[in-house]
Amino acid sequence: MTEPTLNPESGFRRLKIDLAYDGTNFAGWAKQPDQRTVQEEIEDALSRLVRFPVATIVAGRTDAGVHATHQIIHADVPEEELDIGNFAYKLNRILEEDIAINSVIEAPANFHARFSALKRRYIYKIADGGRQISPLERFDIASWFRPLDIDLMNSACAQMLGNQDFAAFCKFREGSTTIRRLEVFQWRRNEDGILVAEVAADAFCYSMVRNLVGAAVCVGEGRFSQEWMINLLEEKVRVSNSYVFPAKGLTLTGVEYPDDELLLDRISMTLGRRDEEF
Amino acid sequence: MTEPTLNPESGFRRLKIDLAYDGTNFAGWAKQPDQRTVQEEIEDALSRLVRFPVATIVAGRTDAGVHATHQIIHADVPEEELDIGNFAYKLNRILEEDIAINSVIEAPANFHARFSALKRRYIYKIADGGRQISPLERFDIASWFRPLDIDLMNSACAQMLGNQDFAAFCKFREGSTTIRRLEVFQWRRNEDGILVAEVAADAFCYSMVRNLVGAAVCVGEGRFSQEWMINLLEEKVRVSNSYVFPAKGLTLTGVEYPDDELLLDRISMTLGRRDEEF
Repeated sequence: MTEPTLNPESGFRRLKIDLAYDGTNFAGWAKQPDQRTVQEEIEDALSRLVRFPVATIVAGRTDAGVHATHQIIHADVPEEELDIGNFAYKLNRILEEDIAINSVIEAPANFHARFSALKRRYIYKIADGGRQISPLERFDIASWFRPLDIDLMNSACAQMLGNQDFAAFCKFREGSTTIRRLEVFQWRRNEDGILVAEVAADAFCYSMVRNLVGAAVCVGEGRFSQEWMINLLEEKVRVSNSYVFPAKGLTLTGVEYPDDELLLDRISMTLGRRDEEF
Repeated sequence: MTEPTLNPESGFRRLKIDLAYDGTNFAGWAKQPDQRTVQEEIEDALSRLVRFPVATIVAGRTDAGVHATHQIIHADVPEEELDIGNFAYKLNRILEEDIAINSVIEAPANFHARFSALKRRYIYKIADGGRQISPLERFDIASWFRPLDIDLMNSACAQMLGNQDFAAFCKFREGSTTIRRLEVFQWRRNEDGILVAEVAADAFCYSMVRNLVGAAVCVGEGRFSQEWMINLLEEKVRVSNSYVFPAKGLTLTGVEYPDDELLLDRISMTLGRRDEEF
C-alpha cells in the first residue's frame, strides 16, 4: 500500500474526492480491525477500480456514528488511469448505499486533503422539548426532552468564538494542543422546529463539537448560566462527560481550501503547528 | 379482538391517531402472517397500553416500502382509559424507531378513519439525471438515470385531473371500480434539485400513484408524447408494469376529513359507492 506523501510519487496522480455518508452503521472514518469503517470501504472500492492498492488521506476524521454530506479526501493513483470522468459513477456502483461519491477530480498541485484545509464545517441537529422526530429523519437528529432557549444558547456560544484554548471541550490527548480558532457557532430553528447549530473552525479536536453542544444545551435548558460556560472555557476545566451529546446529531458539511496558488503556504503553516489535530 | 364498527360499541371510546413511519423495513400497512407490518406493531402497542386487544382502521392502506408522515387511523378502546393525553408519549416508548405517533385524540362523533376521509395526499420523490442521492436521504427517494423535463410532465399530468376511470393506472381487481377524482398531480424541484410530485385524490386504487409516476417519467424523458399518456387514460389500456415506479419514493403526507357535523354524511356517501377502495 502506498502511503500518501505531501505530493504524489513519480508515476502517480492525485485525486480530490468529495463524498457523503450516513455514519449510522460505521465505526467512524478511520480503519480499525474487525470494524466497518468508511475509510476501508472507500479504499477497497478505489483499489478495485484502479487495480492497485490505494491509501487515502481525509480532511475530517469523523467519529463513530457521525455523518458527512461533503467530506474531502485525497488518494494517489497510477498515472495511466485516464478515465477520471467516470470514477464517481463507477465508485457508486461498487459502494453500498450508505456511502456516496459526490465528485472525483484531479487535485491541483500541492493539494493535501488534511494539511491544506483552511476550515471544517459541521452542523448539529437537536429535536428539543420532547418533539417527535419523523422516522424518515431519525438518523441525524439527537433528541432532548426539555425545551431549549435558542437566544440563551446563541448568547453563550458567541462567547466561545475566536482563537482559544478549548481544553475544557476536548478529550485530553498527550502532546496535543487544544488551541483552535472557532469561527461560527450559531443556532437556528429549521422549518420543522428542529434546532440546528452551524459550527466552523480551522480544525477541531476530538469530540469538541459534541462537548460544546452539550454545554450549550445546559445553558439553553436553564440548568446553568452562560457565565458557567464562559468560565469553563477560561478556566480550562474539562466539562463533564455526562453532558457530551451523541454522535448521531453531527454531520460534517464541508471543508474549505485556499485558492490553488496558496495551497503550499497553507500546508507549511499547518505543519508549523506540529501537534495539529483535525 | 373487537372489530371496529361504524361507531364504537357501548363501553368503548374511539381514538383518532396521527402517525408516521419509515416504510423501508415493513411489508406495508396491512397485517400478514410472518411479516413485519405497521398495523401489527401499532395494534400490539395499543393492546399492551390499554391491556385489551385493540383493532385499528386505517385511512390509507400503504403498500410494502411506502412511507407516511401523517397517516390517520382510528381504534376503539375501553371507556375507562382516561389518560389519553399521555398516549402518544407512552406509545412512542413502546414502538421501535421507524414508527412515531404524532398525536392521539378522542375522535369526534361519527369519525371513521377510512369512510369519513375526503382526500388522501401523497408525495413522490425522484432524483433524476443520475443525480447522486445523499445517503441520509436515500430511504424516500427513487432514482432515474435520464434527466426529466418537468414542464412536459406537468403538462401531461394536468390532463389526468378530474373524475376519471383510472383503469389504465390500477392493478385490476375483480369487482372494484377504478373511478377516482384526482385533484392534484403537480411536479416541482426542491432546493436539492430532487423532483417532487404532489398527488391528491378522494381515494387511490392499488399502486395508482406509482403507475401514474411511471407514465409521467416516460413523458418527461421524451420516450413518449403526452398524447400517449392521455390516450392510456382514455382508452383504459393498462400501462406496462415495467413503467411502475418503486414504493420507496412514495410517502403518504396527509388525510383530510370534513368538519365534524359532516362526518356522517361523508360515511354514507362513501358506503353508497360499494366497491370503493382506498
